[in-house]
Amino acid sequence: MYRSHNCGELRITDCGKEVTISGWVQKGRDLGGLTFVDVRDRYGITQLVFNMDEQADLCTKARKLGREYVIQATGIVRERSSKNAARSTGDIEIDVTNLNILNESKTPPFTIEDESDGGDDLRMKYRYLDIRRLPIQNNIIFRSKLALETRKFLDSEGFIEVETPFLIKSTPEGARDFVVPSRLNPGQFYALPQSPQTFKQLLMVAGVDKYFQIVKCFRDEDLRADRQPEFTQIDCEMSYVHLEDILNTFEGLTRHLFTHTLGIDLGDFPRMTYDEAIRLYGSDKPDLRFGMEFAEMNDLVKGYDFGVFDSAELIVGICAKNIAESYSNKDMKELTEWVQRPQIGAKGLVYIKYQEDGSIKSSIGKFYSDEVIRSWASRFGAERGDVLFILSGEKDATRKQLSELRLELGKRLHLIQPGVFKPLWVTDFPLLEWDEDTQRFYAMHHPFTSPRKEDIPNMLNGDHETLKNIKADAYDMVINGSEIGGGSIRIHDRELQAKNFKLLGFTPEEAEAQFGFLMGAFEYGAPPHGGLAFGFDRLCAVMNGQSSIRDFIAFPKNNQGRDMMIDAPSSIHDDQLKELYLEVKPES
Amino acid sequence: MYRSHNCGELRITDCGKEVTISGWVQKGRDLGGLTFVDVRDRYGITQLVFNMDEQADLCTKARKLGREYVIQATGIVRERSSKNAARSTGDIEIDVTNLNILNESKTPPFTIEDESDGGDDLRMKYRYLDIRRLPIQNNIIFRSKLALETRKFLDSEGFIEVETPFLIKSTPEGARDFVVPSRLNPGQFYALPQSPQTFKQLLMVAGVDKYFQIVKCFRDEDLRADRQPEFTQIDCEMSYVHLEDILNTFEGLTRHLFTHTLGIDLGDFPRMTYDEAIRLYGSDKPDLRFGMEFAEMNDLVKGYDFGVFDSAELIVGICAKNIAESYSNKDMKELTEWVQRPQIGAKGLVYIKYQEDGSIKSSIGKFYSDEVIRSWASRFGAERGDVLFILSGEKDATRKQLSELRLELGKRLHLIQPGVFKPLWVTDFPLLEWDEDTQRFYAMHHPFTSPRKEDIPNMLNGDHETLKNIKADAYDMVINGSEIGGGSIRIHDRELQAKNFKLLGFTPEEAEAQFGFLMGAFEYGAPPHGGLAFGFDRLCAVMNGQSSIRDFIAFPKNNQGRDMMIDAPSSIHDDQLKELYLEVKPES
Repeated sequence: MYRSHNCGELRITDCGKEVTISGWVQKGRDLGGLTFVDVRDRYGITQLVFNMDEQADLCTKARKLGREYVIQATGIVRERSSKNAARSTGDIEIDVTNLNILNESKTPPFTIEDESDGGDDLRMKYRYLDIRRLPIQNNIIFRSKLALETRKFLDSEGFIEVETPFLIKSTPEGARDFVVPSRLNPGQFYALPQSPQTFKQLLMVAGVDKYFQIVKCFRDEDLRADRQPEFTQIDCEMSYVHLEDILNTFEGLTRHLFTHTLGIDLGDFPRMTYDEAIRLYGSDKPDLRFGMEFAEMNDLVKGYDFGVFDSAELIVGICAKNIAESYSNKDMKELTEWVQRPQIGAKGLVYIKYQEDGSIKSSIGKFYSDEVIRSWASRFGAERGDVLFILSGEKDATRKQLSELRLELGKRLHLIQPGVFKPLWVTDFPLLEWDEDTQRFYAMHHPFTSPRKEDIPNMLNGDHETLKNIKADAYDMVINGSEIGGGSIRIHDRELQAKNFKLLGFTPEEAEAQFGFLMGAFEYGAPPHGGLAFGFDRLCAVMNGQSSIRDFIAFPKNNQGRDMMIDAPSSIHDDQLKELYLEVKPES
Repeated sequence: MYRSHNCGELRITDCGKEVTISGWVQKGRDLGGLTFVDVRDRYGITQLVFNMDEQADLCTKARKLGREYVIQATGIVRERSSKNAARSTGDIEIDVTNLNILNESKTPPFTIEDESDGGDDLRMKYRYLDIRRLPIQNNIIFRSKLALETRKFLDSEGFIEVETPFLIKSTPEGARDFVVPSRLNPGQFYALPQSPQTFKQLLMVAGVDKYFQIVKCFRDEDLRADRQPEFTQIDCEMSYVHLEDILNTFEGLTRHLFTHTLGIDLGDFPRMTYDEAIRLYGSDKPDLRFGMEFAEMNDLVKGYDFGVFDSAELIVGICAKNIAESYSNKDMKELTEWVQRPQIGAKGLVYIKYQEDGSIKSSIGKFYSDEVIRSWASRFGAERGDVLFILSGEKDATRKQLSELRLELGKRLHLIQPGVFKPLWVTDFPLLEWDEDTQRFYAMHHPFTSPRKEDIPNMLNGDHETLKNIKADAYDMVINGSEIGGGSIRIHDRELQAKNFKLLGFTPEEAEAQFGFLMGAFEYGAPPHGGLAFGFDRLCAVMNGQSSIRDFIAFPKNNQGRDMMIDAPSSIHDDQLKELYLEVKPES
């Protein structure tokens, strides 16, 4: 080794020892006769000291060291006169007797500090320097630890990690596949998996009983912020289980992960049906870190000649505590403009202030007496000092708008405490989702999801409205308003699977060509089974209270799907294309 | 759950309990009034019993169960009258009170037994049934356990598992890349990684210090037997290390894996230089499970007017113990024909029998007196009863042929004990390999391998012969004649890396276009580093004494790169191609 110790481990008890450390020059300081150099590695920072009076050559050499030079230093550990309590090695320094420059460094394009002065593009191009920064390094270490704890827990529960193939078959249902031309099979293509869904189901048919995998998945989507073309899942499947068994197992996993990485006990996860979540929070991934549940007001507000409410499908509001006095007209105007932005799309915002002095101030006083308005308070548990915000209009759109407003108020009013985690299960998702544009049903989860047992007859014989109301044995795990994972009990019967494909607009031939192998497998003793998948990148970010997954991925791609560092994708040689029987056809 | 117990856990102490199990019907037997049904899952087999006298309906239902039906049975555990000591549940049976058919099964295309009657193609097409067989299931469980033990060990040594990207840049050096067309970047392609080599080196530049990953890699090669287009590596890299540190660390890993999965202590690994391995075994991956080291005979045999030897660059032999009496002329003839097959390519085979009675019998008695031949024995440690096999010709070819003969004799003479593991490190590989066809050097390991320090001046100034003799800080781990892993100390200096690319025939522009990001990274404080990669599929197979990796991969591809089960690769929709700006050009 180039070192006897790393840069984070020397302590006062090591004084007097001769040691060798290696690392990067964090910074140097010349103080008259003494030169101090901080050396950094993954484990910490250690101070070197050089004395111009005693060892002029060595000290001169040290003074010439640049930032990020790679050095090796040998010397004697000694107690520091001026200690640094913020640093684990802050009690000691090394009185250097030998200094070796292992590699030089050009001046980095941004500072290697916790807060970097590098912009996003620069950080991505020089990602190998960005990762030297402690926050990014900590993210990557956290991710590694989280993966290992996941594996240890699932192993202890009898799960087997099975690697499923990456070169599979293109099944254009859902998102776009990345495809891989096959040289040995001219004109044919593999696809990279969007998930190992069909393979894990086949593993259940194969008797593997409990499967998991931490695995890369691929989606060729138009990239929005915080989407990556390749991402990682904790993918799981179990046989001979009911919904309850799956929820218990993966609630157990999640609690284990929080305990063993953050030291936080999440307690039992509350559960909420999809319908309830939509009704109370306008979202299937409600953020439970603060209250502000929706209250519906149709029965209270209609019939008072206020046309906006009278004509609305839904009138629904939320209550913000204790802001009646502090929220000015200007604030109200600004908030109204916020909900009217095209991204939110509300027509207007009704507010009601239950003022501390008992009076009412509202934007609809013309239509409703103070008496009437006062009577609404109990629906919200509103008290003096509180403000109601009310939206109205078409049901689904209004709920969505109010959900956005609720989250925005949560932020603005600082209702979210850092370090608080509020998990829940959302259950009983609809099986099917109607798309007006294409006039067809899509699978809300995926085509392999089983309807609830009691809904199976409706599925086989249902009309359009009945079909829309079929519920699936599908569930999502939500933490702090982020969907962390989702899954379902699967169909394990060929007939039912065929019926589901038919509802989703597959001809029997299409279903057979794309998923014949799975339906075939169902004929050879498929056990009842179900599972779920966690978004691993998202889980890492949420557990660290961060909103972006990008800095939990060592080498992410930008929004154009490019790796800025290696400059990929790129053009390939003509003979590579020729071998693949392909021609690039310019944009037309 | 559909079960209170699995099919492998009930014992005599459970007698009297009411239990529910679920699983697959292994087989049924009707014995007059009693019907026995064996139910199987991953954990074992449990016997159900049905009594026609007491419960006719239930028993009739049981009699109709087909092989591989999925059933759920509830009943009382009781002691068996006729126990089955070969089975962990063999002391008990379940007196069934309720039987539920969870799914039916068509008759499987082959038997689900340890020895299947299914051919390879059938097994691959119905892989989900093949995996139900215990030997395959055990392989897959072993693989999962081996991966977890690898992670636990490397974590305990301070390694961080970092996921490197799958959509990278095509670098046509080495094997062919699989490429992935980019829809967002028309006419451009990603490549799937042949290994994470450059990324792990960048992680060292990034200060990650100790990296590992169990990761899929991809090579678009013409598939030979036991090659897969996608395969798995244990990929590792360390900073601030010398060769010795790396060998110690990964010898430690390998010993840990053998101890914790097989209960075998491998002891210290012997080391052998590449030159020594070639000289003594004619191979850089010698199988040390038996002796038969090569002995070179040029000084002994030349000058006796035997033209074949006199004109040969190398005359080299091996000694087979105690077969002089048992090996007949017919055997010798058969062996001679074996080495003369085109796959081996020897011109002929010289043998010498040191017979038990002291006499000599050989195929070259015409040229060498018994006296002379007897004098050769000491070179081989040969005694009465032994046989020498001698080949001659061009040095490299002859060694290769004799290596094949040695391995063949090892097999034929049963010199290899099952369950024996003989690991070693082969070190000091040549840096460069000259290719006569293309008249250029190739990197023996890869272009990032560092020459030994003392050879660097030769690299910078060497002529052709000097270059050929440069040794690298490169090493392979070999177990039982299989290369399990290999690696090297890497170049971490831009100048030296550029020089190496030049030796390998890259123009400066090509080197920059393909690997500019890495050489650029070397300018920002790259630490000395090195690492290695294990072939994970191969390691699984070797540890289980098997020669094929295929049955350690859940869903392998056949020799045409096809997945027989899902029927991939396949053609894709025209609009998928159009979106990718591609056209398939028929074979011409």
